[in-house]
This record gives sequence, structure tokens and C-alpha cells, in this order.
Amino acid sequence: MSQFQPLVGIVMGSDSDLPVMREAVRVLDELEIPSEVVISSAHRAPDKTAGYARSAAGRGLKVIIAGAGGAAHLPGVIAACTTLPVIGVPIGSGALNGVDALYAIVQMPPGVPVAAVAINGARNAGILAAQIIGAADPAVRARIAAMKDRLAGQVEEKDALLAELGVEGYLARLGGSKS
Amino acid sequence: MSQFQPLVGIVMGSDSDLPVMREAVRVLDELEIPSEVVISSAHRAPDKTAGYARSAAGRGLKVIIAGAGGAAHLPGVIAACTTLPVIGVPIGSGALNGVDALYAIVQMPPGVPVAAVAINGARNAGILAAQIIGAADPAVRARIAAMKDRLAGQVEEKDALLAELGVEGYLARLGGSKS
Amino acid sequence: MSQFQPLVGIVMGSDSDLPVMREAVRVLDELEIPSEVVISSAHRAPDKTAGYARSAAGRGLKVIIAGAGGAAHLPGVIAACTTLPVIGVPIGSGALNGVDALYAIVQMPPGVPVAAVAINGARNAGILAAQIIGAADPAVRARIAAMKDRLAGQVEEKDALLAELGVEGYLARLGGSKS
Amino acid sequence: MSQFQPLVGIVMGSDSDLPVMREAVRVLDELEIPSEVVISSAHRAPDKTAGYARSAAGRGLKVIIAGAGGAAHLPGVIAACTTLPVIGVPIGSGALNGVDALYAIVQMPPGVPVAAVAINGARNAGILAAQIIGAADPAVRARIAAMKDRLAGQVEEKDALLAELGVEGYLARLGGSKS
Amino acid sequence: MSQFQPLVGIVMGSDSDLPVMREAVRVLDELEIPSEVVISSAHRAPDKTAGYARSAAGRGLKVIIAGAGGAAHLPGVIAACTTLPVIGVPIGSGALNGVDALYAIVQMPPGVPVAAVAINGARNAGILAAQIIGAADPAVRARIAAMKDRLAGQVEEKDALLAELGVEGYLARLGGSKS
Amino acid sequence: MSQFQPLVGIVMGSDSDLPVMREAVRVLDELEIPSEVVISSAHRAPDKTAGYARSAAGRGLKVIIAGAGGAAHLPGVIAACTTLPVIGVPIGSGALNGVDALYAIVQMPPGVPVAAVAINGARNAGILAAQIIGAADPAVRARIAAMKDRLAGQVEEKDALLAELGVEGYLARLGGSKS
Amino acid sequence: MSQFQPLVGIVMGSDSDLPVMREAVRVLDELEIPSEVVISSAHRAPDKTAGYARSAAGRGLKVIIAGAGGAAHLPGVIAACTTLPVIGVPIGSGALNGVDALYAIVQMPPGVPVAAVAINGARNAGILAAQIIGAADPAVRARIAAMKDRLAGQVEEKDALLAELGVEGYLARLGGSKS
Amino acid sequence: MSQFQPLVGIVMGSDSDLPVMREAVRVLDELEIPSEVVISSAHRAPDKTAGYARSAAGRGLKVIIAGAGGAAHLPGVIAACTTLPVIGVPIGSGALNGVDALYAIVQMPPGVPVAAVAINGARNAGILAAQIIGAADPAVRARIAAMKDRLAGQVEEKDALLAELGVEGYLARLGGSKS
Repeated sequence: MSQFQPLVGIVMGSDSDLPVMREAVRVLDELEIPSEVVISSAHRAPDKTAGYARSAAGRGLKVIIAGAGGAAHLPGVIAACTTLPVIGVPIGSGALNGVDALYAIVQMPPGVPVAAVAINGARNAGILAAQIIGAADPAVRARIAAMKDRLAGQVEEKDALLAELGVEGYLARLGGSKS
Repeated sequence: MSQFQPLVGIVMGSDSDLPVMREAVRVLDELEIPSEVVISSAHRAPDKTAGYARSAAGRGLKVIIAGAGGAAHLPGVIAACTTLPVIGVPIGSGALNGVDALYAIVQMPPGVPVAAVAINGARNAGILAAQIIGAADPAVRARIAAMKDRLAGQVEEKDALLAELGVEGYLARLGGSKS
Repeated sequence: MSQFQPLVGIVMGSDSDLPVMREAVRVLDELEIPSEVVISSAHRAPDKTAGYARSAAGRGLKVIIAGAGGAAHLPGVIAACTTLPVIGVPIGSGALNGVDALYAIVQMPPGVPVAAVAINGARNAGILAAQIIGAADPAVRARIAAMKDRLAGQVEEKDALLAELGVEGYLARLGGSKS
Repeated sequence: MSQFQPLVGIVMGSDSDLPVMREAVRVLDELEIPSEVVISSAHRAPDKTAGYARSAAGRGLKVIIAGAGGAAHLPGVIAACTTLPVIGVPIGSGALNGVDALYAIVQMPPGVPVAAVAINGARNAGILAAQIIGAADPAVRARIAAMKDRLAGQVEEKDALLAELGVEGYLARLGGSKS
Repeated sequence: MSQFQPLVGIVMGSDSDLPVMREAVRVLDELEIPSEVVISSAHRAPDKTAGYARSAAGRGLKVIIAGAGGAAHLPGVIAACTTLPVIGVPIGSGALNGVDALYAIVQMPPGVPVAAVAINGARNAGILAAQIIGAADPAVRARIAAMKDRLAGQVEEKDALLAELGVEGYLARLGGSKS
Repeated sequence: MSQFQPLVGIVMGSDSDLPVMREAVRVLDELEIPSEVVISSAHRAPDKTAGYARSAAGRGLKVIIAGAGGAAHLPGVIAACTTLPVIGVPIGSGALNGVDALYAIVQMPPGVPVAAVAINGARNAGILAAQIIGAADPAVRARIAAMKDRLAGQVEEKDALLAELGVEGYLARLGGSKS
Repeated sequence: MSQFQPLVGIVMGSDSDLPVMREAVRVLDELEIPSEVVISSAHRAPDKTAGYARSAAGRGLKVIIAGAGGAAHLPGVIAACTTLPVIGVPIGSGALNGVDALYAIVQMPPGVPVAAVAINGARNAGILAAQIIGAADPAVRARIAAMKDRLAGQVEEKDALLAELGVEGYLARLGGSKS
Repeated sequence: MSQFQPLVGIVMGSDSDLPVMREAVRVLDELEIPSEVVISSAHRAPDKTAGYARSAAGRGLKVIIAGAGGAAHLPGVIAACTTLPVIGVPIGSGALNGVDALYAIVQMPPGVPVAAVAINGARNAGILAAQIIGAADPAVRARIAAMKDRLAGQVEEKDALLAELGVEGYLARLGGSKS
């Protein structure tokens, strides 16, 4: 979380979501985009949640990321109270393992969209927030492009290492051999 | 909808839910329980929705029935703002045909329950509301018992007719023969 | 389980459901609502089950909570034999992890509703039972309101702690850091 | 339905299931196995249902077929009250189109089995009932074998016709061409 | 497995299914019904499988139980080659955890039924086989009735123990308390 | 589609998606945001698709909306070739009715996000694109706020009409009464 | 279906599958690959099916395409009896609309693969068969490449037409406008 | 991986897929078919992926196997860029455990097929690749036939051992007894 004016608000319904959601914080830090992290709950703290959403644009936020599991209403409830883009992260918890959260986040009615990412996809939520900011900021877009280049480079490195070591050698080095 | 002080509030997110939700109105009329019907939306009219939920107990309502489809947040959002029991009716619309609404209604987090009924189960939502009122009102419970007796009687009548007409004769009378 | 006249009957099909179902007992104790706990089975002890349901209202119960897994018929079988409101708790067991129990509980036919809560949602079943009793008892409703205030307060406390410690500090204190 | 002592009882929860369930009647007629058809409901007529199941073996029935949709408890409730084999037919109705009925029928707990067939698979339920009777009656088994031979023969006839007419010619004759 | 003429053949596609399938053997032993156990595979040993199915009735078998996971063809392939009733046990293995096996077993086409039981429901498959034999053998039916009585008695015993110990005491004795 | 420099590119894999996707065009027109519409296919025209994505930012686009059904790779393939935010619209076609498209769009791996909206949710995709542009443009945000106000107003109007006409009167006027 | 030595055998379990499966015939005709079409059934005609599979390689076939719905065993049963590659087409019929057939085809156990294509994906099954033959025949591969070029060309043509007519004009010409 | 000219290219999106995918390498080694293994990613390294696919036929490959999890685009993206047959292996990772990958692989649009195998079915992908090569190479087909004979032999051996040891003895030897 940066010490500058936050541009991205990261909200979650419970501190049990924090181990997943901090991936959003981390990637925004990597991309040098200030963010803030808040615990609020659509069901247990509806006033706090609505207040946060309503004040967000005025406080300078550009995007809100909201993570929730089960009947995951948090992203939609926030989207109802702001004109900022809202990204929803379905948390893969409970007996349905996140399918409930995915449906509760992505199937929003016409007029109030939420941008859903993968179940537990908090890192991608952070990158998407950066892309949204980057839509109007070429410097941010350049940092994202550099990150994508690093990802492509890692694929190349791993592929080269695999070519060198072979499948069994590679797995042995990974310590992931389960033959 | 009765002209007396309503005891049950029936809320839906869109007038497209009305053909389903009126079954709740009808069965409450049959059971002589006054109700009121309201269109509000968790996403398009969040203030109206929260206000309705917050004032419900004070206005004398005993139960709220809320129907919604897709990312069906309405019952949960209402439950967040009242201590009255809230019954959720998943509406079977859209590509997922109500599974999304069912999950978004039933998988509420600890602390804020919603009582889910079947997809499109508005009639049962009305009966459940009556049972809740009947928990403290033997006269209502007696009317529910009479309704259950009528249901059992209808089963007996149909069974007797089937015994009399046979399968093909029964289906011919139903006009439902598709042989 | 209180020593007073029970108002809520909590039934489960097997003692393997007890670790889940005791959350209902506990929250009813917190809310000072007397309850009783019974093992019965729709399939292995159908007479006992029907007898329990039929005698429930006469014995002063106001609500029945029934938990079951798999082809979870217990709540529906009880609902068939009483006019009291019946709350069903799908237990998340077996290969389908509770989706089977959810469908077998929630998809009841017109005339015989069951109020479904989340898979393994026994705590919410208890709160819902209290809300049903509270529909006619402002003192109960006040205790529920106080519980909801405590929940909102906990959200505030956690959020304040997160603001103080930051994401990594908070997770370190939780012992849940898995960086 | 034969006029002789019925060996197979065919039960359904609602006359709306009759168009599906009559396929069981028909195939039992083809196989010369007397059957009876009954409308009863696990939820709306629980006493009638339990009574039917309890008296079935004493009245000479050998197998019970039960069809139901939604939270399809009928087969399991019958199985709880008899030692006869019970065949369950999930009816493909409502928003979940029979998946709910399938799970509610097949996922029975240890001790009380139900033999599930396909969604809307009433014809196979009838054949399975005949196979059960045939397990102790070689004459019935011979009639089933003859039916299987006819099925194999139909496959041969259709295959020969297809070889003669070609794909387009065959479809034109079927009137099913949708080119 | 009894040393007498087997009446029930228990077939599985792989020895990895044996820990599940032996529950069928055990319950048949409890019910004093001789059985035999065979490993064969619809895909890896199609001739052995067809041969087993074709000779089953002639060798005196009355019922075949077949267990398989994944694309579980074994029960259907056996059913194609015999007029005996075939019970299918979906094994809950692999990424889909048995839903694939359930669908592949239960959704048989008209003409060739398989009697599906629950995922991993081998004990119920054994009881169902006994019920099928019992349809023509009152002595077997009496043993099944006694088993059902024992099950009902166990429910009563557990319920009495729960009444005596209370929820927490009961769980402490179970060693299953996870408070 | 506006005649000005397009800010949003709307891509679809097939002209059969156009009746769904034009809702995105329309709402962007309502919000006065210029867009362009393109048919390209991840599978049938991979070069065209990659080229479009790679040139998008340079041509002044700020957001790309991509709609696809089935194994819906189009949004992800575009996201792989741009740093602009990409919104994916799962099209509800074929036997799986859009669940396949939803999973294929939303479950993107870390590093390459796609913002998924509801199945057939093209209108919301357009609004989300506007919100993304509005993140840096208060005038756009004001137009979105006005649209949200209109939605809230429509809810109020419908609710008032329902209060005036009653349920049956309202449905009669809708012509949607199906009594 | 060509008059030359067939290289691809197209098998289906029922003539009701023919409207779907003929797409495989047609695309193989387009690609000038001789094929033959056969009705056989894993369940109703197991001997015919096994015989067909066992003789296929010897009769000069290179690939077998098998289409089936429900508990779709046909492709797997054929794969058990041949070393030729077998392509399975799940037919989208019945209450589960092809998900059952997909799982029953694709989830084959180690040792006996089936190559699954999309639900109702018979055209792709034909193209895949051609690709398999093309793996050893550059002339076939060239014809496939030409077909792919035509597909890419159609995308270009439609995109150009859309650019010319605009969204509403294009839809009006399609006659698919549903404004 | 053989040291000869590879005939099969095995591609995966991430080295985390390698423990699953090496089963394809191993079975191809058993069948003496040279293969190569490559890490590339449809999303993180789109150029490398397209380049690999485009050059595959020219470099002498006959089949490509591609494994991916989540929104598994890799097989389809490769299929878009080659006329060789492409086999897709859905990797069972993440919250949806491979259902997402299965749908994203198998539901390809007309014109660009992918041959899907079971979730985590890399061994079968290798055998299917061998069968494709064997379609034009009787020596390969003979090696596959021998492998199938060994599988059938193993079934016979296990069945004989089970007959000798009985169920409990067999499980004791396996060490898998969990009585």
C-alpha cells in the first residue's frame, strides 16, 4: 500500500479474504500505483460500505476492487453507489468453492456492471485496475508493458531450462517430481 | 393485496419479476394475511431499498419477501438493514436460469440469514411468510392447516379419478395426452 | 440448549451432522432462546420423524430447524407434517459437497415450503429462527439488533486494525501470512 | 395397467408427472406384467404415501416405481417404509430441469437405497421393474430378452435403410431434414 | 464373499475401486446373500466383461453390481449383455469427483436400464441387490426388515444419548468436538 | 457507432453475436462515447485479431470489448496483445448456454486479466467501458451518473404505478398477465 | 458419403442423431475424404458395435467418429475394440442437454482415449478426422489449409460489410434485427 | 523425450503443468514415438505460441498436444495456427478443478477443432497421438495393440489375484485396507 494519494480502493468483506486480496496490493505496488485497503461488509456493515463507495470518486480514487465469497454482494453493492469502475474478485471459499461468488458477482443486471476476474484472481484485479488507470496514463501503460515483457521472458527462460534439463531433470530441480 | 395494515412486504427488483411474484400475493390473500407489493432494486435504487428495509419493522411488517434474478442481491441487501425475517425468491431468468439467483440468495454469510425458497417459488414464499406469522398466531396456523388439508384432498381426488379413468382416460381428459 | 420450554426444535438425521448443527444451538443460546436437539432420520426412523413434527406445535415449539446431507429429505418430510415454519440446513458432505442437499431442501413443491439457508449455514439457521420468533417479540428483535451491532462493530475494529498495521502486519498478527 | 394382481406399483407426486410416467405403464403392459398407478405425494399426502408403502409387500407388489420432480422425496420416503426395491424416476421439470430431482433421488444415505434411472426415464424404470421380477421368473426374463432382440433388430433395420438411402435420403424420409 | 452359489456378481473396473466396493460385499455377507467379486473393465477387457455378463444368468446370478469411475461405462456395457437387473455404483474419483460417473451410469437410453445408487454408495447397492432377491424371497425380506429395525434402533439410541449428554458432552465423547 | 475518433473497440467472433453485442454500441452512443465495431475471430482469423489488438492503443482506443461464445478465447487472445483493459462478454449460445463462455473468459491466468460481465451482458460491457473512460474524465462520469439517476427514477415510477394499479392491474397494462 | 474406399467411419447410436452427425459427412465430402455412415448402438446392438470396431482397421478405415447422447458409451466402447483413433461427438439431447454425453465421452480412463469435440460438434469431428489423415498426407493438409483460408476470408468479408453497413444496417440485411 | 526427429510436440502454458504433462512424454517413449516438450503460453507469450504452431508441420511434427488449466486457450490458439491435429489436455487446477479448462478446450467453434481428452488425461493424450500416427503406420498400431493386450492382461492378473486372496486379503496386500 503506497503512502501517496491512493488511486485504487481495495475492499473486502472479511479479514479471512486478506491472504487472497493482498495479491492485488502487491501487484499495484509493483506497478507503482498507490492503493488503500479496507474491510467492510455489504451485510454486516452496509452503511460503512455505501459511504465508502459514495465518497470514493470525491476522494480521488479511480477504481475500486472488491473481494467477497459466498453470496458475494460486496462488489455489486459498491457498484450501486458509485460511477467508478468496480472490479469484483470471487473468493473461493465454502462448500461451493467460489462458483457461488462468481455468479453473485458477474451476473449483474443491466445498468450496474461489475468487472469480474477469476476466482481468487486478486493479482489480475490489481493489473486490471492498473490498465484502467493506464487507459489515460501512458506511463502506467508502459510499466504494464514492461511487466508483460518480463512474463514473456520468464516463459522463454523456463522453456530454455526445460530444453536443457529435460522433463525429469527439470522436475527434479523443481523438487516437484512425484514420479 | 389486502386493504388492511400489511404484515408482509413483497419486494422485487424489476416489474419483469411480477408475474412470478404475484403468486406470493395471491396465496397471502387466500390466507387472509395483508401484504404490500413494492418495486425496488438493490442496484438501481439502493437508497429506496435500504430505507424500505429499515422502516419495515416500525411500520408493522412482520416478514419481508424479496424476489430477484441473476446476481440476486436484493434479499441479502434487505436482510442487512432489518431484523425481520427475510424470504428470498430466486427468479429463474437469463442464461443460468436461476442457479445464479439461488446461489446469490442462499449462500449468505454468518450473521445475516436469508430464507431461500425454490427457484420461482413465490407461492411457497407466501406460505412460509404465513407460517412465520402463524408461529405466534394460532388462527393463521389453522388457516394454513386447512389449506394443507385441501391439498391432501386434491391428491385423493386426483388419485380416485385416475383409478376410475385409467392412465389413458385421465390424460385424455386433461387434454395432455401426447401419445 | 436452554433448560426452559424450548421454542426451537433442532433435528438432524445423523450424529455426524452435530459438529455443524451445534452452531444453531450456540447462537440460540447467545440470543437466549430455548431450544432442544434431536436426532431423527427421514429414512431410517420415519415414524419418529413424523411424530416429532406432528407434536411440535402442540408442545410449544415455534420453529423447527432440520439439517441433512445428500438426498436431504429431513426438512421436507418434517414440513409435510407441521404448519410451523421449517428451516433446512444443507450439510456439505459426500462427493457432491452439499449441492445435492441444497437442491433436495430448497426445491420444494408448491404448498410445502422449507426455508433454506447456506450449505453448513447452521448459525444462520439459528439466527433466522430467532428472527421468526422476534417477528412477534420485540425483545428478541432487540437482542438480534444488538448482535448485528456487534457484528458491525467487529468490522470497524478489524478495519481500524488493518489501517494501523497494514496488510502484511495484519496478516503476521493473524499468523495467517503465507507469503 | 393390467387387470390382474398388480406386481408393480407406479406412484407419482402429481398428475403433471403422468405423461412421463405412463411410459412405465406401457412397457410393463408390453412385458405382460400387471401394474397399478397411484397419485400420492410425499409432501402433500404423507400419510397416504407411507400407508401405500407399508402395505405394498403385503398386497403382493414386488417393486415400486416412484416418479417426482424438484426436491423429489417421494422415492426415498417410500423406500423408508418398505423392504421392496424402489425405483426412482427423476422428472425433468422446473428451472433446474431434473438435476435437482436426480440428486434428491440418487444420493440416498446408507441403509435405504433407491434405484435411480435417467431423468424422465420412466420406460427404463418399467423395464428395470420387469428385470427385478425376472430375476426369479425365467418367463419374464425371456420376454425381456425378446424385447432386447427386437431393439437390436430395429438397429439393424435402420442401419440397412441408411445404407440403402444414404444420409440425405434417410433424413428426407424421416421428414427430419433441416438442411 | 460367501462360499455358496453366488447370487450377486460384484464387478469393478479397477482394483482402485475395491475399497469402495467392498461395502457391497460386506452388507451382502451381513444379509447372508452369497456374492462373488470380479475385476473386469469395459475398456481394457471388453471381451471378459461381455462374457461375464452373458454367462451371469446361466450361472445362477440374480443381480449384478458394477462400480466404475470417470466415463463409467461398465454398468451399461454389462446391462447391454444380460437381462438381469444391473446396479451401477458411481465411484467418486478424479477431478469431477463422481459427477461424471453418475451421469455416465444413470442416463442410459430407453431399452437398457441401469439402477444407479449414490456416488460411492456401494453399501446401498448391496442392500438393493438383497431387496431385488427379497422381492421373491420373504426370508431375505425379513432379514432386510431386521436390518432396518436395527438402523431405527440406532437412531433412537443416539438420540437418547444426546438427550442425556447434551450437545457438547456428546461431541466430547465422540472425540469429534472441534469447538 | 459514433463518427468521431473511436475510444472503444467492440470486437466479436461472428456476426451471429451482433444482436447481443449491439447493446454495447447503443449504450455507448447514449453516453456519447465514440466506438467502432469489428468482426474478427481468435480461431478463424488469428492474425487479424492480434493485429487489431496490437494497434489499438496506438490508434487511440482506450478500452476493448470482446464478445464470444463457446470456448470463448477472443477476449483473452486480445488481452494477450495489448495493455489496454479488455472487457469480455460471454455469449449465451449452444448446448451449455454460455457457462462455457463465462469460464473461458473469466478464468484467465495471472498476468493477463479480462474483465468479465454477465452472460449476454453487452449493455453492461458498454457502461463499464464508459466508467473506465470516466475514471479520467469527469464529464463522462457525470453522464453515467445521470443515467443511473434515470434508472433510479424508472424504479420509482414503476413502483408508483404499481401502487396505483395494484398487481393485477399493472400486469393487465403490461399485457403480461398470464393468470 | 463418397463412393470410394471409406477412410472414416461415422457411427451413431440412433437415427435421431443423424441431423447432427451429417455435418461430419458433409465436411468430409467437402474435403474429398471418403466416409461411411453406420447406425449401431453400444447398448442395443453391442455385438454389431464391437464387430464394426474390430474390423475397421482391416477394412482400411483410418479414423472412427462416433456420436451419442446421454450416457454416451458408444465412442468408448468402440475405442475399446480398435487401435484406430476414435473421435467422440456428444449429442446435446435430453434433460442435461449434452453435459452427460460430454462427461461420458471425454473422461475415459488411462489406456483407452477418445478424442472429444464440442457438444453437437460433428462438423469439427469431420475436420479433425481429416487432420488426422492429413498428418500423413500433405494433399489433405493442403485442402484443410484452403478451407481455413476460406474461413478467414469470410471473416474479412463480413467485417468489411459491417464497416460499410453499420450495425443496424447489417442486422437489417441479416433479417435478424430484433431492436 | 526421444533424441530422434520429434513427431509429437507437447506444449504447456506453465511449468506447473509439467507433473501432469510428463505422462504424455512417458507413454510416447514407451511407444517409441519421438516427442519434444515446450513451455509456451497463449497469454504470456502469444508470439512464441503462434510461431511454434505455424512451424510445426514444416518441422516434421505430426501431432501437437497442448495442456492448460483455467481459461485454457492454449490448444485452441495453437489449432488456429496449424492444420495438424491438436490434442488438448485440461489441467485440473484452481477453484473449478478443471471444468473450466475442459469447457475452454472442448467447446471450439466450427472450423477449428481440438481433440479433448479427460481432465489431467495426459497419458491418454500421448496414446491418442500415437494412434493418430498409427493411422498411417501399422508398426505403431502394432505397438499400441501390444500395450492394449498388456492392459487386458493386467486386468486378468488382478482378477485372478482377487479370486485367490479374497477382498480383504487383496486389500491387505495393497496396503489400502481402510476398514
